[in-house]
Amino acid sequence: MYSFKNDYSEGAHPRILNALAESNLEQEEGYGEDRYSQEAIEQLKERMGGTDVAIHLFSGGTQANLTALSAFLRPHEAAITASTGHIFVHETGAIEATGHKVIVVDTNDGKLTPAHIQGVLETHNDEHMVKPRLVYISNTTEIGSVYRKKELEQLSHFCKEHHLILYMDGARLGSALCSAENDLELSDFPQLADAFYIGGTKNGALIGEALVICRDSLKEDFRFHMKQKGALLAKGRLIGIQFLELFRNNLYFDLARHANQMADRLREGIGQAGFAFLSHSPSNQIFPILPNVLITALQRKYSFYVWDKIDTERSAIRLVTSWATKEEAVAAFIEDVQKGC
Amino acid sequence: MYSFKNDYSEGAHPRILNALAESNLEQEEGYGEDRYSQEAIEQLKERMGGTDVAIHLFSGGTQANLTALSAFLRPHEAAITASTGHIFVHETGAIEATGHKVIVVDTNDGKLTPAHIQGVLETHNDEHMVKPRLVYISNTTEIGSVYRKKELEQLSHFCKEHHLILYMDGARLGSALCSAENDLELSDFPQLADAFYIGGTKNGALIGEALVICRDSLKEDFRFHMKQKGALLAKGRLIGIQFLELFRNNLYFDLARHANQMADRLREGIGQAGFAFLSHSPSNQIFPILPNVLITALQRKYSFYVWDKIDTERSAIRLVTSWATKEEAVAAFIEDVQKGC
Amino acid sequence: MYSFKNDYSEGAHPRILNALAESNLEQEEGYGEDRYSQEAIEQLKERMGGTDVAIHLFSGGTQANLTALSAFLRPHEAAITASTGHIFVHETGAIEATGHKVIVVDTNDGKLTPAHIQGVLETHNDEHMVKPRLVYISNTTEIGSVYRKKELEQLSHFCKEHHLILYMDGARLGSALCSAENDLELSDFPQLADAFYIGGTKNGALIGEALVICRDSLKEDFRFHMKQKGALLAKGRLIGIQFLELFRNNLYFDLARHANQMADRLREGIGQAGFAFLSHSPSNQIFPILPNVLITALQRKYSFYVWDKIDTERSAIRLVTSWATKEEAVAAFIEDVQKGC
Amino acid sequence: MYSFKNDYSEGAHPRILNALAESNLEQEEGYGEDRYSQEAIEQLKERMGGTDVAIHLFSGGTQANLTALSAFLRPHEAAITASTGHIFVHETGAIEATGHKVIVVDTNDGKLTPAHIQGVLETHNDEHMVKPRLVYISNTTEIGSVYRKKELEQLSHFCKEHHLILYMDGARLGSALCSAENDLELSDFPQLADAFYIGGTKNGALIGEALVICRDSLKEDFRFHMKQKGALLAKGRLIGIQFLELFRNNLYFDLARHANQMADRLREGIGQAGFAFLSHSPSNQIFPILPNVLITALQRKYSFYVWDKIDTERSAIRLVTSWATKEEAVAAFIEDVQKGC
Repeated sequence: MYSFKNDYSEGAHPRILNALAESNLEQEEGYGEDRYSQEAIEQLKERMGGTDVAIHLFSGGTQANLTALSAFLRPHEAAITASTGHIFVHETGAIEATGHKVIVVDTNDGKLTPAHIQGVLETHNDEHMVKPRLVYISNTTEIGSVYRKKELEQLSHFCKEHHLILYMDGARLGSALCSAENDLELSDFPQLADAFYIGGTKNGALIGEALVICRDSLKEDFRFHMKQKGALLAKGRLIGIQFLELFRNNLYFDLARHANQMADRLREGIGQAGFAFLSHSPSNQIFPILPNVLITALQRKYSFYVWDKIDTERSAIRLVTSWATKEEAVAAFIEDVQKGC
Repeated sequence: MYSFKNDYSEGAHPRILNALAESNLEQEEGYGEDRYSQEAIEQLKERMGGTDVAIHLFSGGTQANLTALSAFLRPHEAAITASTGHIFVHETGAIEATGHKVIVVDTNDGKLTPAHIQGVLETHNDEHMVKPRLVYISNTTEIGSVYRKKELEQLSHFCKEHHLILYMDGARLGSALCSAENDLELSDFPQLADAFYIGGTKNGALIGEALVICRDSLKEDFRFHMKQKGALLAKGRLIGIQFLELFRNNLYFDLARHANQMADRLREGIGQAGFAFLSHSPSNQIFPILPNVLITALQRKYSFYVWDKIDTERSAIRLVTSWATKEEAVAAFIEDVQKGC
Repeated sequence: MYSFKNDYSEGAHPRILNALAESNLEQEEGYGEDRYSQEAIEQLKERMGGTDVAIHLFSGGTQANLTALSAFLRPHEAAITASTGHIFVHETGAIEATGHKVIVVDTNDGKLTPAHIQGVLETHNDEHMVKPRLVYISNTTEIGSVYRKKELEQLSHFCKEHHLILYMDGARLGSALCSAENDLELSDFPQLADAFYIGGTKNGALIGEALVICRDSLKEDFRFHMKQKGALLAKGRLIGIQFLELFRNNLYFDLARHANQMADRLREGIGQAGFAFLSHSPSNQIFPILPNVLITALQRKYSFYVWDKIDTERSAIRLVTSWATKEEAVAAFIEDVQKGC
Repeated sequence: MYSFKNDYSEGAHPRILNALAESNLEQEEGYGEDRYSQEAIEQLKERMGGTDVAIHLFSGGTQANLTALSAFLRPHEAAITASTGHIFVHETGAIEATGHKVIVVDTNDGKLTPAHIQGVLETHNDEHMVKPRLVYISNTTEIGSVYRKKELEQLSHFCKEHHLILYMDGARLGSALCSAENDLELSDFPQLADAFYIGGTKNGALIGEALVICRDSLKEDFRFHMKQKGALLAKGRLIGIQFLELFRNNLYFDLARHANQMADRLREGIGQAGFAFLSHSPSNQIFPILPNVLITALQRKYSFYVWDKIDTERSAIRLVTSWATKEEAVAAFIEDVQKGC
């Protein structure tokens, strides 16, 4: 049974395990003040053109989101998200648990536009309602779409004009940046977003997300918030070493590129077999629409999520590829789809 | 510069890194539902005599404490702790951030007794005050002392009588169980405590604490709380594999025993040099009182915390040993103390 | 300028002020333990057939809602509400501020049905999402509709079956119970709801809402929650005296009946003038659809909210009547509408 | 049975009830935007020399404290209070329920000094601990002592130097300002404190505390916080009318002066009978130390709190006087004490 369920089924890329092993017996400071974490942070800053950002390493995305948003918002301020947004759907009310409402907007493709935000601002106009303050986007989105530079610039401009914080969840930022449709670079984000995170867990690390805080006023005392939310690891080196390795010689991008290529092949092969897709997702998640009988047959050999019922005969499934996805598995899957399994 | 600052300066025990490497490319379920986490939990349950406990794996102690306490308590209920308690001092108000007051009691040795709790109950007697509901203890305590079985039985009995939840922070439970003064076994705790955690990070793991919930009424829906607090790792296997290895062939206890032995040697050597100690700590933390001039000299070769000023001439320092502490370093330190450095 | 903006524009019914004046210099216990509050609670219990409920007096609806919901729910549990629900729209995220997500459902008429709840349960099926636990309804709803007994019985039955708490916001319960379409009595609610409140502020009191907790397991320690949320008034008698007076000789129902009659006349008169209504609202709020030119003319003599744009020519307005609404003002308004102002 | 238990046993001063009755049928805006609240606020501003403060009306002290502190503090910031402080002892963890730790300092007389705060700052020096940010004082204190101008100036200066917010709970500010030892005026506080409240409930109002926010950066969006915490009354006029009346012709001070005079007489009469006092309290609360037999005898005719056990024979009791305390009751109490009851 081969799994296309997600991009965190395997452990870490072997180079990361090696790096952990090599440094293992060195004595280091705790709580992220070790030499490796410091170096990883410096290396990331250079990657982003030496801009004046603050970087903090987290062990998971929900933790990064809840720590950042609760640190950035005052009690009456709320986040705005697409209805597909991870914080709205799949974090067990983590943001609300820190006291903040999450305002939701329906979208076609998981991407927010200034018009979406404008609509929210217009209906929130006095103190009997929360104050919309932070715009939460994901890139890639939860349904695999990717922001174009122009879209992000418009959103960023709108947010600056309306004193809104623009926050980007980059759990799958690697896949976004290596998408065929991407025209953004890592160094663009500090200009466009007020804060964002670079996801490691879903791109080859054991654990690790690097939160980048770009707006000065959001940086103060941030480590207090991390400690309070249980996000400072005693052996913070564990994440530092991984990010150092991920961004040495572009490993991060190589891994994402592989994941995307595997998805591209699946998309092409399934398309050639005559099947359509639920959404346009030029990244490592694809959502082909298949006959239920074919799905049942495929489930005997592969694991994946059945995403949505289309009609009585067909459903959309979700296939996720990763740095570890095997070419043979992809080829076999395509063959199985093409021959009806 | 050799460090006696803490027990998390090095990475993981090599056997743990090996276990991670060996399983690395296997595909596993996410969020702690992988085979390794399940096996680790089964193994721990057997260790505790097959009792009907629920076990959940966390990446750090603050995270385990805040998730457990906020899950166990209703909004008006409070925790009681010694003034040395980690939740009171060193978690940046993590418990208060979930809405709960932490009531503090001064103790001589970091250990709570029924008399301490009784005093709190007597002064909290109506709805204008919080309702004391959970007793938080640490074993070993933050100042290195260790609970005797009799003490824990009395506390446990008192808590049951007064409908209080007894929660034990076991960040250094390995050292406690291997202390010369210990008369408890791992399998005793499910009878004595309502919940406790077995610390991995400070005893050879990269990250990992195993929370054991013993009281049935506290078990329900616990994974919801973990997810909400950002404590469910996508690659939960990372902790499962480590605990599986730690409790295979008693590695956990071997590591703690080594840490304690190194502390024993330091204690004995420093004592022979004629110096006293701030507290009685039969575990892997010791607090010798040394002349300031000697401390300054030692600081050129070793790193450690200066804990407390005793008088104008002398201070207490904290020395912490671990599974990774080297015998040569201990010997050298003793020699340096004995010859006045 | 006569106001139809809301049902809290005037002070209290004169009998209430008299009752306050008469008891003014008596010395009473503080924090709701005074004789008047106790009597008011006993009187309400009798009204509800002597059922075993707990009753607590609050100074406002938002306060009652946030105290009750945060007391009833564990951290991972959420409330379900119609998208018109007061807790979703107009309480500045008060429920989220206590840590709980509010799940929203679109409805036609502001009323929830078992089918609505069923839909929510189906999409909330694991620990990555909050656990729906409490169903929040309002009677009358925020758009003036009224629950029939059968509807409430079905909802109540569904909630019991699915271990959900049914909570009713009765800010305008007086108007609901005196509606022409009502077939419920006050004594029905303890059987149907797990908790609800009887609104005083919008029906003749200066301040005051009486929260009735019907389910035993929700009663424990409730006064702790009130104190913690700032809801225990030092001079709790202020609310006790008012409720005692409101339910003496059915004043509460007389006042609500007057409010409804005034709304009935407005509805009839405006209907006779040929205008339609945005919604069916057999209570003290009505939403006539009027030409914008007429609205502008009316605004010179009356204040009211313009509720919704219908098309380029017409809008819906909201007219609210109360115990204090004057017959002459209603007559004049109708005349102005009929003659085109 | 005459009560000296507290200063909120009676209703309101008759002039206040009259003012409520006179304005009762006027139609006013809701939620504190009525004419009376606006006038009351303007009048208070004038009283304070026309300084640029923001004023908000609350129905109780706990509500004012929790709304203000949660609005002023970021999640990792904590309040400092004397161990006698109301927020530490008697608000059921209201501040912690909003997520903030309350750091406690022992004092002799309930008053904080720069030295107390300095001690807290020194022990809170990194991100593993909360960040002390707000200094909470009460005037009068909970044990009846009163701040001198010099003391408040020193505290204020220290807070400014250390970027701390100075917040004063003025539940009994009337009694403080009319104390024989007071040398402060209402108009001094905007220069000295960053925010404070003027207590109405304990000085003749039915309910009502006026929060004064002096520091500009704390003013923004404050009404959102009030609404979120359930503190905006629909009929906000209820508090506005009372404060308008309280500060018309100095009623507020006349009432406080009467309360203090009654306490002065009790203090003098009890002192003449040869009894000592637990603390120096030149305000409307006194703490005489009496033989237990005398206390028992007095309890047959008067109600009051037994505050503290002094030795096997004697206890301290608390006597509280108010605007409503009767001269005859005071005279009778003194006589009973002097003749041994």
